[in-house]
Formats: sequence, structure tokens, C-alpha cells
Amino acid sequence: MNTGELTDLGQQLRVDSVRAAAAAGSGHPTSSMSAADLMAVLLAHHLRYDFDRPAHPGNDRFVLSKGHASPLLYSAYKAAGAIDDEELLTFRKLGSRLEGHPTPQRLPWVETATGSLGQGLPVGVGIALAGKRLDRTGYRTWVLCGDSELAEGSVWEAAEHAGYEHLDNLTVIVDVNRLGQRGPTRHGHDLDAYARRFQAFDWHTIEVDGHDVDAVDRAYGEAASTKGQPTAILARTLKGKGVEGVQDREGLHGKPLPEAEEAITELGGPRDIRVQVQEPPAARMLHSVHTGNLELPKWDKGEEVATRNAFGEALAALGTGRGDIVALDGEVGDSTRAEFFAKEHPDRYFECYIAEQQLVASAVGLASRGWVPYAATFAAFLTRAYDFIRMASVSGSGINLVGSHAGVAIGQDGPSQMGLEDLAMMRAVHGSTVLYPCDANQTARLVGAMAGLEGVRYLRTSRGESPVIYAPGEEFPVGGSKVLRSSGRDRLTLVAAGVTVHEALAAAEALEQEDIAVRVIDLYSVKPVDRATLRRAAEETGCLVTVEDHHPEGGIGDAVLDAFTDGRPVPRLVRLGVRSMPGSASPEEQLRASGIDAESIAAAGRLLVEEAVVR
Amino acid sequence: MNTGELTDLGQQLRVDSVRAAAAAGSGHPTSSMSAADLMAVLLAHHLRYDFDRPAHPGNDRFVLSKGHASPLLYSAYKAAGAIDDEELLTFRKLGSRLEGHPTPQRLPWVETATGSLGQGLPVGVGIALAGKRLDRTGYRTWVLCGDSELAEGSVWEAAEHAGYEHLDNLTVIVDVNRLGQRGPTRHGHDLDAYARRFQAFDWHTIEVDGHDVDAVDRAYGEAASTKGQPTAILARTLKGKGVEGVQDREGLHGKPLPEAEEAITELGGPRDIRVQVQEPPAARMLHSVHTGNLELPKWDKGEEVATRNAFGEALAALGTGRGDIVALDGEVGDSTRAEFFAKEHPDRYFECYIAEQQLVASAVGLASRGWVPYAATFAAFLTRAYDFIRMASVSGSGINLVGSHAGVAIGQDGPSQMGLEDLAMMRAVHGSTVLYPCDANQTARLVGAMAGLEGVRYLRTSRGESPVIYAPGEEFPVGGSKVLRSSGRDRLTLVAAGVTVHEALAAAEALEQEDIAVRVIDLYSVKPVDRATLRRAAEETGCLVTVEDHHPEGGIGDAVLDAFTDGRPVPRLVRLGVRSMPGSASPEEQLRASGIDAESIAAAGRLLVEEAVVR
Repeated sequence: MNTGELTDLGQQLRVDSVRAAAAAGSGHPTSSMSAADLMAVLLAHHLRYDFDRPAHPGNDRFVLSKGHASPLLYSAYKAAGAIDDEELLTFRKLGSRLEGHPTPQRLPWVETATGSLGQGLPVGVGIALAGKRLDRTGYRTWVLCGDSELAEGSVWEAAEHAGYEHLDNLTVIVDVNRLGQRGPTRHGHDLDAYARRFQAFDWHTIEVDGHDVDAVDRAYGEAASTKGQPTAILARTLKGKGVEGVQDREGLHGKPLPEAEEAITELGGPRDIRVQVQEPPAARMLHSVHTGNLELPKWDKGEEVATRNAFGEALAALGTGRGDIVALDGEVGDSTRAEFFAKEHPDRYFECYIAEQQLVASAVGLASRGWVPYAATFAAFLTRAYDFIRMASVSGSGINLVGSHAGVAIGQDGPSQMGLEDLAMMRAVHGSTVLYPCDANQTARLVGAMAGLEGVRYLRTSRGESPVIYAPGEEFPVGGSKVLRSSGRDRLTLVAAGVTVHEALAAAEALEQEDIAVRVIDLYSVKPVDRATLRRAAEETGCLVTVEDHHPEGGIGDAVLDAFTDGRPVPRLVRLGVRSMPGSASPEEQLRASGIDAESIAAAGRLLVEEAVVR
Repeated sequence: MNTGELTDLGQQLRVDSVRAAAAAGSGHPTSSMSAADLMAVLLAHHLRYDFDRPAHPGNDRFVLSKGHASPLLYSAYKAAGAIDDEELLTFRKLGSRLEGHPTPQRLPWVETATGSLGQGLPVGVGIALAGKRLDRTGYRTWVLCGDSELAEGSVWEAAEHAGYEHLDNLTVIVDVNRLGQRGPTRHGHDLDAYARRFQAFDWHTIEVDGHDVDAVDRAYGEAASTKGQPTAILARTLKGKGVEGVQDREGLHGKPLPEAEEAITELGGPRDIRVQVQEPPAARMLHSVHTGNLELPKWDKGEEVATRNAFGEALAALGTGRGDIVALDGEVGDSTRAEFFAKEHPDRYFECYIAEQQLVASAVGLASRGWVPYAATFAAFLTRAYDFIRMASVSGSGINLVGSHAGVAIGQDGPSQMGLEDLAMMRAVHGSTVLYPCDANQTARLVGAMAGLEGVRYLRTSRGESPVIYAPGEEFPVGGSKVLRSSGRDRLTLVAAGVTVHEALAAAEALEQEDIAVRVIDLYSVKPVDRATLRRAAEETGCLVTVEDHHPEGGIGDAVLDAFTDGRPVPRLVRLGVRSMPGSASPEEQLRASGIDAESIAAAGRLLVEEAVVR
């Protein structure tokens, strides 16, 4: 396309953005209009993409980090012939694929769901990492950001990672339209302010007038040919560009244009330009899934093994058995034991340093390219990435997260290092699976099983050693549980997971000496829970005592309820958990101080029996 | 102190760090040893602090961002005479004030709990903001960071904010010891790599040999006299400095020295240097708490008002009534309505732009200086700051968080903008209060009440309008609830909050027409819950049906259980919540699609009655 045609295409994208938002009665047309020329040039001259084959391995990957500019994206889809005008006007309507913010769950050309700002670039880095380190098919990753979102620290985690990894297959286009939601950004049209920042992180930068299609065209070409550095194109634009009454004005963010028809006329009216998007080059997927030779590690009953160690060994074995498994960690691989994988499969291991947002975003990016990531750090530090975990679920992304150093049992390091909210956090994620093994063999099996699940999967591991209680061949279905002690005389049921399984078993043994029989359930599947077993225990013993190395809210104590929320009778419930702020103390002292050690559990059981609370 | 004395003091801090960790059998001595000279010079020559009067308004403020170097901090306390040697050796022991990572809950000289890296600087920015914009007493904020933690994006949110605000009362000292936990950092001893980054964010930088006490001394002096910019001192150091066998070696992070006695000898043996820390200059607290003239806004029953609007108006009124109230928002003040406060009290409003981690950290920093912050953004985006919220509770920090745009009811924007996990996230925070009003008057009262609570307080607001159902003078105690419909014929109880209160009332009305009486409870206090009222409803109606615009896990459905987890009989429970991934649709369509609208609630009630599940 020549200059005039590119300009015209930009105008069409503006017109269609205005039309879509007008039809919806909501949306962000002005945010779309500023980036219309940037999108037009990309679509017409640089993006290599087959809309009929979104999974083509040679396709470039595009991420609209400023997800609220979805009208622009959908207008581009129309120009490319991927959707028609009728569908464009279903924007934001019930049942439409064209949601307010784009999501891969509805549209096959969307790499990752956006709408929470500052996430598109981090995920784009994950995609580019796949491209450079794993797929090696030469595709380019393009990310279109807003300027306001560059205030998010996650952007600079991404910038650091990309600069350090020399991701010259990554181009970020920043739509510097000067106006955020509430008012002007800090730096306005000072492109150099942004350029300096990217340069400090070792990026190549280009500054352009974002409405000069030829300059933009040259910039994209320069970015694509720059070697050794990722490129950030800082494009000076005007929010609401093309319509005098809204152009560069405050107070118009996130609103359809007040005079849509006049605006469309001013923009030159509707057009029907169809773009022939470049085909991707021939390419093939380089990674294959081995289906044989998966030999999970095994331990003998009675051995003392930390579940974090079992995780590490199992992951390494999984990596040997499957060529599509990748692992990531945030500077603590020696603690989480992800380093075992790193040693055996260094080409599939990604050190993310102390940057948990980028850790999770990289996992999401890798998953979007068909890899199966396991991202590990301390359970406590996964809270740093909660918005990324949340958006991963919005995307329907298949990632495995592993949080180590669960609970007070870590000992003297104290509360800043303890995962005490992670079960709650992960249970609340839509579609998540939450697993919490108590011994090494169980851990290994669950690590292996996670790879075959969908959505966000979470595994919680412990720092300290615990005895192996399960035989190596035992199965642990997701949604299952293990009844470790059971009789016809059970007065109540202890429901535990992880470290508290062992405490519960010891408590049960002590109570048995006092002629009080109690059932013990290992609820290793915290979500989904084993409803049948819990219901049977409720029916037969009448009282569930949950015990968890976690705060009382949102974890196992709440999870058991999932078996009883359809109006059926509910057993009596007693909840043991960490109710006070821990200090520094040995693991044993911590469990005792938090009232979740064997002695405390036995005492609770004794009290319930004495007070005839239980049968 | 002269050069020799400063050097000697540094060695003492090393010796004591080694001794403390040896006594504890755990800890991070090598991370402490690298920064010992930095700390020695600060303590002896630049810090102005009265350890007997930690609340003295003229005191400098020191934050140990690399919280694992707690042995160094405690050794400094000993050198300053704040603790004695006997206490030093209680490090990490049960009951000791000297926890593995320092916390203000145990020690009066600690400004904020650290241990989750990359948080000390953001909180330090909050403290410096207080110093420059509010307190105006001239104190300096010093933050000692590690180099590894500069990978955290939150550090660059902080850097951006500090550079833009010209916080020349803030000095960051980076202990560039080259070695992270697992291995070398990305940039090793390349001080300029870090300097470039800080400079890009408009900081003044100084590069020094972190073991040359005179150079460090000059650097601190230069930082303290630099105007218009915050200063970052990049100090080249060696991890484990002073002991040949551990100095600059990998694999020794987080472990007591293997040969402690020999190391102590090599360091010149124990000393007993006492430092005369400079007194703070005379100063007085400039902010006072007005106790009169608090006139919360009021609305008439029947008016249609969004609770986010009521929040905005109430906060502005609160700010008029109390001079210590401050407000912060993350670029969405026009949406959260925090902008109402900004308009009336611009001197106490902090625009944080799109940087939620810094938003919460600034609140924590301001709170540490005695201000009462309300930090607002979309409920969904508070997930970005969950690690900061978690650490705020570890600190015992008193902050108010407000999350707007709760649930699917926001409509067409779709799931990326919806708060659907926030109740779970906030319930799981130790010591938190979680409030969720359904009308404007209730919102206003709760906004006012929050200011008087302790710990982390959370208020959830809605985007759309809802009818005012409470009279202006009504009280809403924390831990209370409101029974909106009740009779002796109630077949079940609907437990709702926020938008679902109105849906539940409509459902109850519809069911009454079918001669099915149901109780309706407004559970505006989600944590703590009103146990008495829930128990009475359980006893009298036998079945609680919870309805929330939130995922089923961790929110109201789980919260009601807090009334029944002591072994008493539990009512039947039915849980309505958002179980599927929303798309784009109108608010009414969203509520219906999620099964939490009046019709769905009535249908559930009808079904329970028909199936004789309920009495």
C-alpha cells in the first residue's frame, strides 16, 4: 500500500472503532483512534499472519497490551477479512466474540487476554522467549502498549528480561497519546523520557510521529532488522485523532464519541478496504511431545523427604519424559528445587530472577506457544503475581504454578517468607486446580498429573522433610482424597493436607490410645475436593475437623464446604489454622504456637468428645 | 569517628552478624557482611535518630529493604545501645524480638516489615512523600537495598514516583554484592548498569566502593545535600566481606558461616564499640486530628446512588472532618470517585498513576508516619498489589483499601475489569476487616468507621447505581449485619451483600407472592461476620443461601462458615456465585448469566422448598 492507502486504512480503522463503540454504547474509541495508523501500517506491511491458520508456527504474534483499544483490534480483524462488518457491530453485546477486552477464549487470533494494563508486554516477552530459545522459527512478537501503562513495574521486569536476553525478535510499539484515563500522563509527549528508560534496560529505541505512516513504516522495518536488542518504538500520537472535537482532549477516555455520525463523516466516512496481510513464512513446530520414558522418581515408605525435593526430582524426570515441559523460577531455584530441572534440561529452563510478575507472564507466554510451563517460587511470593494469575485464568491459559515454603512450618525465617494465603488465593481463581501433597511419592504423581490438566494448576510444597507414607505406585486422582485411618467407631474426621497430615496421624494415634477413634483424610486435592469421601465422613462421623498450615480463611477449612453447598445436611465443622501472626521459631515450635501440631489436634479432638459435640 | 574507627565499627557489625547467625543456627550473615561498612558509616555519621524516642518527628527513617540482612540491623541496634549483646544472641529464637526478618510489630525502630524483596524502596517512597508533602519536618529517608531485588518491577514504580516527585529527601543505598540467592545477579559488579537505570528515572546517582568508608561517607553527604532529585548510591561490595573463605563466593546465601569462630577471629574478634548516633533536629508534628465537623453525606431512601459515588463523597467529607486523612488512587480516580477527595483536599491526595504496588506501598509508608490513608483502585487491580497487602498485615500497618467495580455487575467491560476474587484475597489477610456495603448511606458510615479500625481494612464498592434502603442515621457496626426481612415463617435465609442485597430483596418479594417467606440478611461485614445473627437464622430457618457477585470460593459463601466452626450444628448451605467466565453484556444480563439475579435467587429458593430440603 502506498502512503495514501495506508492513511486511508488508518481512517477506516478509526471509523470502525467509532462505529463499534457507538453500536455498543460503551467502549474506548479515542484510545483506539490514537493507534489507528500504527495498526494500519503493521497490518498492511509488517505483520506476517494467516488468519485462517492462527496456529501456523510461522505466524508473527501480536499482543494488544492496551486491551481497552479492542475496537481497533476488531476493526483490524475486519480489514483483514477475519470478521465481517455485521459481527464488528456486535461489539460488547451479550454472546458476541468481540468482548470489551480481547480474549483468546473467544477469538483464535488473540494470544493472551488483556485489559489489566502492563501485562501485554510481559506476556509478549514470554512469547518472544519461546520464539528465540525454543521454537526458533523466526516469528516476530509485536506488542502495542499505551503510554500510561508504562508506569506499571511489570513493564520494567519485562524490559529487563528482554534486554538481557537480547530478544531482537520482540518489538514494542508505544502509543504515546499523552492522556491516561483521568488526565495527562506524567511525561506527556516527551518521547525521550520513555526512550531513556528503555535504553537504560538495553533496548534499541525509535521515536516517530505515530500519524506519519511512512515514518512508522520505516520504524517497523528498522525494528525488524535490529539485531541483538529488542526495540521500543515511541510513537507520538493524539488520543481521538482525526476528529477535531475530541482530538487530544481530556475527559473523553472510555466513552463512545458524543457525535458519532459527524465524527464518521469527518473521518471520511465508512470504507471497505481489505488488507492482504502477509503470509507467514514456511515453518514447522520444532518441539515434540515424547510419550514414553516418563519415569517418575520413587521413594520407599518411611524415608524422610521434603515435598519440595520430590517436586524438583519429579519435574526433572517429567522434563526427560516430555520434550514440551519447560520450567521457570524466580532466583530461588535452589530453594524450590526447580534447579534440579535446570541442571538436566538447561535449554528448557528460564531463570526469571526476582521478578514474580514476569515469572508468571513468561509462563503464560510460553503456554500460548504450546509449551507446558512449571513456574516456581515461594508460595508467599506468588502473591506478587496475583493479577497475572487472575488474567491467566481469564485467558484460559494452561500453566502450572508451584509455591514452596508453605506455612509456618518453614521455621525461623518468619512470616514474610511463609505462604499463608496461597490456598485462598488459588482457590478463588476461576477454573483452578489446587493440589497440596504430604509425601514425596504423592508429590511426584501430582507433578506429573498436573501437566495434563487445563487452566491454572497450583501445587503447594513444603520446606521440611516428612515421612513417605504412600507406596510408589499409588494413584492420586485430582478431585480425590486418601482415607488414612477409618473405622466404624470414628468420633470425628480430621481433614488435613501437607504437613498437617502427619500431625493428624500422630494425633489420631494418641487419641486411639485413649480409646477415641478418629478418621483421617488426606485432602491433597484442595480444589476440586473429594465430595463423596467428605460426605461419607460427614454422615458416618458427624464432625469434620480441618487442620491446615494456612490462615483459617479460604483454604482447607473453607474448601470442605464445597462438598456440602447444595442444601444437603452439613456436618459439624471445626477449623484449625494459623490465627496469629507468627514470629521466628523452629518448625516444631511454629506448628505448636499456631495450634496445628499433633498435640493441639488431639486436644481439640478430646474437647469435642468431652463436650459431647461429637457422637 | 575517623576512618579507622569507622572501619572497626564495620568489622564489629560483621562479627556480631556472624555471632547472631551462629547462635541461631540460621540466618543470612554473608548478606549482612557485604553491607556492614555502609551501615557503619550511616549509623555513625549521617543517621539522625533517637533510639529512645522512635516517634520523634525529626528522626530520619531507615528501611532495610533487604530484610534478610536482619543480623546487620540488629548488630547496628546493639552498637547504638538500643539492645544489648545478650538480646542480640536471641536472634530467631522463639519469643525473641529479633525475628528472621525485621518487623515493627516487635521492634519500635523498624518502619515497615521487610523480607519480601523490592518492597522497602516503595514503602520508603511513601515515607518520603509524607516527609516532603505532609510532615515537612526535614527528615531524611534512607533505604538499604540489595542488588538482586532491583529486578522487581515495584522498584521501578517507586523510582518513577520518586523521580517525578523530586524526593530529594530520599536516599537509596544499593548493596551491589553481585551474588543473589541462587547465583550471580544479571549485572554483577557493573554499577553503571544500575546507575543508568536510576538516571533514566531522573535520579541522581553515585558509584562507590562500598568498603571504602571515606568514600561512602562522602557519598552520603552528597546525597543529603542533593536538591531536586532522589539519590541512589550504588556501592560495590563483596558478599561475606572480611572472611576470606566466604568472601564473594557462591553457594553461601542464607547460611551461618561454616567456621564461625575462625571467621570472628579473622574479623578481629568481638568489639564493644558504642556509637553516639546523631540526635534528630527539633521538630514538631504538623498534622493534627480534627475531631469535630465530620458530616458524612446523606441520601434519602429510594434515591438511586452508586456506592462508589457514596464512597467518594464520604471520603471527601472525612477529609474535611479529619486533617490526618489522606487519599491515593491509581489513575482511576474518576472511576473510583476518589477524585472527589482530590478536588477538595488536593494537598492530601496522591495520584499514583497505573502502579498499584506503589499505590499500596505509599499508603503503608504514609501510615507509618501517622497518616490515615485510603488507597483506591478497581477491586480487580488490587490483586496487582497482593504481596504488598500481605506484607502490610505482617507490619500491622493500618491502611484502608477500596476496591471499586466489584463483580460482573460492571457490565460490558468484561472479566479483566471485574473484581471476582477480592473478597477471598482480603479475607485471607491476617487481621483484615472486609466490608461490602449495598447502599449509599451504609457506604458513608462504613467509610467513616474504617478510619478507626486497626490493620488492613477493605471496602468493596460497585459501579452501578442502587436504591438507598437505609436511613441516614443508621449505624452499621463492624461485625454486624442487617436483617432486612424476617418472620416466623421463614423457610430459608438469603445472605447477600452489595448488589445482591437488592436482588435478594426482589427475590424475597417474589417468593412471598408464592407464600414462601424467606429471611434476608445484608452481610455488609464479610469479615468479621455477625455470628449471632447467622446462628439465629440457622436455628430458625435451617438453611442459608449465600449470594455474591464474586467467585464461589473464599467470599461470602465461605465467610458464613466463620459463625459455625466451633463444632455447633451447621445449617444447610447453598452457595450462589459467579461460576462461569463472564463475557461482555449489560449489568442485568451479567447478573442473570451468573445466576445471581433476583430470578435466579427465587428459582433456587423455590427449588429448595419443593425438594423439601428446607423446613
